[in-house]
Amino acid sequence: MKNSDKSINPNAFANILKNSKKLDVQSLANEILEGNIASLSKGLTYAESSLKAHRLIANQLLSILYSKSGKSIRIGITGIPGVGKSTFIESLGLYLANQGLKVAVLAIDPSSSKTKGSILGDKTRMNDLSQHPLAFIRPSPSSGSLGGVAKKTRESIFLCEAAGFEVILIETVGVGQSETSVKSMVDFFVLLMLAGAGDELQGIKRGIMEMTDLLVVNKADGENKRAAQVAAAEYKRAMHLFPPNLNEWIPEVSTASAIENTGIDTIWEIIKKFENQQKTKGYFQNERELQNEEWFKTFFSQELEDLILEDSLIKQVYESSLENVKSLRLHPHQAVADILSQIKDRLKS
Amino acid sequence: MKNSDKSINPNAFANILKNSKKLDVQSLANEILEGNIASLSKGLTYAESSLKAHRLIANQLLSILYSKSGKSIRIGITGIPGVGKSTFIESLGLYLANQGLKVAVLAIDPSSSKTKGSILGDKTRMNDLSQHPLAFIRPSPSSGSLGGVAKKTRESIFLCEAAGFEVILIETVGVGQSETSVKSMVDFFVLLMLAGAGDELQGIKRGIMEMTDLLVVNKADGENKRAAQVAAAEYKRAMHLFPPNLNEWIPEVSTASAIENTGIDTIWEIIKKFENQQKTKGYFQNERELQNEEWFKTFFSQELEDLILEDSLIKQVYESSLENVKSLRLHPHQAVADILSQIKDRLKS
Repeated sequence: MKNSDKSINPNAFANILKNSKKLDVQSLANEILEGNIASLSKGLTYAESSLKAHRLIANQLLSILYSKSGKSIRIGITGIPGVGKSTFIESLGLYLANQGLKVAVLAIDPSSSKTKGSILGDKTRMNDLSQHPLAFIRPSPSSGSLGGVAKKTRESIFLCEAAGFEVILIETVGVGQSETSVKSMVDFFVLLMLAGAGDELQGIKRGIMEMTDLLVVNKADGENKRAAQVAAAEYKRAMHLFPPNLNEWIPEVSTASAIENTGIDTIWEIIKKFENQQKTKGYFQNERELQNEEWFKTFFSQELEDLILEDSLIKQVYESSLENVKSLRLHPHQAVADILSQIKDRLKS
Repeated sequence: MKNSDKSINPNAFANILKNSKKLDVQSLANEILEGNIASLSKGLTYAESSLKAHRLIANQLLSILYSKSGKSIRIGITGIPGVGKSTFIESLGLYLANQGLKVAVLAIDPSSSKTKGSILGDKTRMNDLSQHPLAFIRPSPSSGSLGGVAKKTRESIFLCEAAGFEVILIETVGVGQSETSVKSMVDFFVLLMLAGAGDELQGIKRGIMEMTDLLVVNKADGENKRAAQVAAAEYKRAMHLFPPNLNEWIPEVSTASAIENTGIDTIWEIIKKFENQQKTKGYFQNERELQNEEWFKTFFSQELEDLILEDSLIKQVYESSLENVKSLRLHPHQAVADILSQIKDRLKS
């Protein structure tokens, strides 16, 4: 009806624009589903963007593609700078791509806006992998808080899966909390370490080892080989002192060398063993559902708070309350009760 | 003016009641500050209650007393059933009370509403300590979700501190998440373990050891003594493989026996060393402020969500969205956007 209308008015024009926008997103989604890499890159750019208009497109895109995703194995890889993460990821990626598997590499790097180097760095360091027809490397989103970057990485995983990638390798570049974020979006968590590292270990926060499914002593080559094996045995011993995970998986310890190209096959066997075991026991699907639930709940909680604290008056009360709570001048429950009664007044019944 | 009014109307009467209530809470607060145990117990009952009227009184009480609290050292104690927690706590409590320190024992037990036994159990097992004039034992709050119980225990800590207790021992009775809750409200975290425990260890969730400031191999007596010492050495070794906490404290490992009454003095020395070191380095106060901040933020976030989800329509959308998100039918961001736009419509501008 409206399209047949001869007199063009602003409303109708806006509708046409809106419809063409909708068509674009649907086409883009279809192209991604066909495995078109240029379209995937475009989609990822929308997902990584902070612009409101882009966020809306990303939401539409993910709404269409969400149900088509979920079919990869998601592997998180972490370790201190210098442990050889990029080289390890390239070795593993090439090993898988050469077997005919479609491999995507994503990175969580909350610090990249400061250090700059990592985007070019990743491209350079993973030169062979980036040229493989079955591989796709996406440099870190360029900026934002850790929460923001993690949110974007999660969306990127789903987009890559919709494009048919079968293995997603997620590299943790930052130190600290980013590992916990990665853990909440992967199926399998790999920690890279070095032999004979005393001081180096200090960079790894307590608790990271506890979430590890596989600890790899990297750079197990040349003169370092023996030390790597001793270290692996030590870590194995230490890890066995700790109780197993709720999913009954007993963390494994392995060694690897990118230079001598050893250990990668064993590592992939361990990952496949994990996947089979977890799928058979039902933990795999269960963990995925829990992750989706947590994603929704955390996102809801955060967005709800943001929405409420958008109000400058409430925001002001919130911040002065927080200061008073910290210094024992105001009881937290009283502070919260005060703020909530203000919010309650504002809700239409 | 209103009090001199001859004609009593319901409003004026309500005001009188309200004022008398206010007076009561102020008197109760004063009595607690004087160290009156009966009044403290009364205050704790209000704090533990789920009745709205009691919650209001507890809030008023804590609002008055909050600034008078914070002067104790708060010690969390955990370990699997059978490790000897109660006996250990009684030994430590008696040791401190005999030195003239005022000691309060609280418990976090999310399961007590089901098992019933623990209230009487605690009283019976800590018979000597409960009769000491400087000691105060509060059995677990009788029911509620873990979040609820933890919330109440935190309030109880502040009430006990206002009553002049110098050492607060918080026993974790439940297994699982309760340790994390305790960790967020104590200064020092003690994990009790047994020597030669293989299967027994399975009850302790991965990650608990990681938050431990002191690991005590308990029941180090008689024939078990040698095994306890070997186990302690093993744990020490394992713990040193892991990097230190951000507060620079290197977790200690010790042994203890309630029967032979050994190890308690060493353990108290370690706790004092921790307290001195942390206070000197500024971590102690810093950690307390972070805990208060976290308490406020978590409580705000939770209460805000509860307030919003009180609305049956929003609640319904939330729950069906969650199911759709889990099963990949609905993208979490889209689901949240839908719910938030509903909430936004309801907020008065």
